Amino acid sequence: MVVSEPVFIGVDIGGTKIAAGVVNVHGKISEKIRVPMPSQATGEEAFSAVREVVNKLLPDVERHGPRFYIGVSCPGPLNPKRGVIINPPNLPCWRDFPLAQRISETWSLPAVIDNDSNAAALAEAVWGAGAGFSSVFYATLGTGIGTGIVLDGNIYHGRTGAAAEGGHMTIDYRGRRCGCGKRGCIEALASGPALAGRARERLAESREPSLILELAGGDLQAVTGEVIGEAHRQGDKLAGELLSETADYLAIWLGNIVDMLEPDVIIFGGGMAEMMSGWLPAIREKLPSWSINSRSGEIPVVRARYREDSGIAGGAAVCLHEENNSR
Amino acid sequence: MVVSEPVFIGVDIGGTKIAAGVVNVHGKISEKIRVPMPSQATGEEAFSAVREVVNKLLPDVERHGPRFYIGVSCPGPLNPKRGVIINPPNLPCWRDFPLAQRISETWSLPAVIDNDSNAAALAEAVWGAGAGFSSVFYATLGTGIGTGIVLDGNIYHGRTGAAAEGGHMTIDYRGRRCGCGKRGCIEALASGPALAGRARERLAESREPSLILELAGGDLQAVTGEVIGEAHRQGDKLAGELLSETADYLAIWLGNIVDMLEPDVIIFGGGMAEMMSGWLPAIREKLPSWSINSRSGEIPVVRARYREDSGIAGGAAVCLHEENNSR
Repeated sequence: MVVSEPVFIGVDIGGTKIAAGVVNVHGKISEKIRVPMPSQATGEEAFSAVREVVNKLLPDVERHGPRFYIGVSCPGPLNPKRGVIINPPNLPCWRDFPLAQRISETWSLPAVIDNDSNAAALAEAVWGAGAGFSSVFYATLGTGIGTGIVLDGNIYHGRTGAAAEGGHMTIDYRGRRCGCGKRGCIEALASGPALAGRARERLAESREPSLILELAGGDLQAVTGEVIGEAHRQGDKLAGELLSETADYLAIWLGNIVDMLEPDVIIFGGGMAEMMSGWLPAIREKLPSWSINSRSGEIPVVRARYREDSGIAGGAAVCLHEENNSR
Repeated sequence: MVVSEPVFIGVDIGGTKIAAGVVNVHGKISEKIRVPMPSQATGEEAFSAVREVVNKLLPDVERHGPRFYIGVSCPGPLNPKRGVIINPPNLPCWRDFPLAQRISETWSLPAVIDNDSNAAALAEAVWGAGAGFSSVFYATLGTGIGTGIVLDGNIYHGRTGAAAEGGHMTIDYRGRRCGCGKRGCIEALASGPALAGRARERLAESREPSLILELAGGDLQAVTGEVIGEAHRQGDKLAGELLSETADYLAIWLGNIVDMLEPDVIIFGGGMAEMMSGWLPAIREKLPSWSINSRSGEIPVVRARYREDSGIAGGAAVCLHEENNSR
């Protein structure tokens, strides 16, 4: 008798969109769809949107055989063990919402959830740039900085599932205030909005011409991380300085991470990862001066395999982990 | 047939002394001895001192029965898996010295080693203030700040055994240079010498009278952490301010630790733990403003069970762990 391999539906819920896809046990994604997420609506309306997305994928999944599972990647805070969305700032629709149970009841299927950075970290550890390494530190660089830790194939959750919030590690306690309330978090220094904020300050105080302002149509408020990345590609000096400074912050931060966790590999994903990918050699070079680990320079610092699909792959990876552990 | 419980010899090697004791499976220490450590001598001379200490304890151990083991707590860097002392700055006698193997050969006994903070963390997790908790963060406050992480009964070692160096986490990258070369490590802000250094700066620039200088015999260079602690006990205002500042630094740092690891319990040991024990409520109170974890205030921050015996208990705990895992 041939037992068919299970298939996963990975669902990636964000503040503005739901993306979902069918993922096989090798991490290959097919049949992707994407719809708006009504995050300002009621909990039931938001859940209807999830239901619709999954229903659209079901015919495709059922072609693969009888065994399938649903895994959700979602912004936290959430409780992965109980499957409950607690109170994510960008998902006001859900407060203490038992998402895993609701999905499970709707389709009589096993369902699991985890936070987006944790899920993406697991996908990289299982199928991506972390495959073959026993400890993985993953960071997503974008509007915020999220992190995930995978040890021996398991997401490191901590006491209540709220661990691995490395983006809010303070490296400059007298520094900029972060949205989280702390000062000098790496997110307040090196995220996309932080980069844009530093650029606006430099542009406001400087008389030097910079492509950044030109590309932003002369409007300081229109300066974004993307604009700075584009200015750098076109050879702008200030953009290069700002990105080099970002690489410095990331090296200081990774020095702390390495001294604490000494992971086998460090992986960068998220919207800013492409822009920073040219700076990975610089980050690796600077890291040893911010780490007491005599072998910190050996640790690979690489780009993630999954890009815009990290949430879909992440949801599926959480399923695969659950499936492996329940056998 | 009654199988006797094993007994452990815990050996605590430091830059200036070797302490050793007989420890039972419940963490009870008996038959302690202490001799100078010839850390500037040759590797063989230093090993002779270890041999002598253990030989003195053997008659006591053998009374307990036939099964016993030797565990060593020692400053790092060292490789716990291979049992090799790599290059500790305060043990110049040993460079790539196979201590576990030498001990094992000398007495035909299983022998294990680990770094002092890791070993002390394990002793607390198994027998001390961390008993019953599944994740333990331990910090020793003294001349330096060392840390250890125990997850589900296992020391967290990282890629090469050099993880859990939380004392060198930078929280102020523009701040004071640490002995390790990094800037603004918690050790450079909150260790005993860092506290004394801050006191000297304040005393040098201030005209206010302080008991600190008086207790140091009017000699700025004689100001130590102990002197500041004594001045605080006698009601000195500046000493109180300096210790409150130390509590602030520790809270900022623990905020990072909690956001990253979300441990079940935080334990302070080491020579400065007594002086700081009155500040633990203040640290717990300040912690939530330096953590994004909504339940950071629930995490116990407590004092270690083992004080000057943490190395003896630590060496023994590493033995017990090995013994449990090899059965």
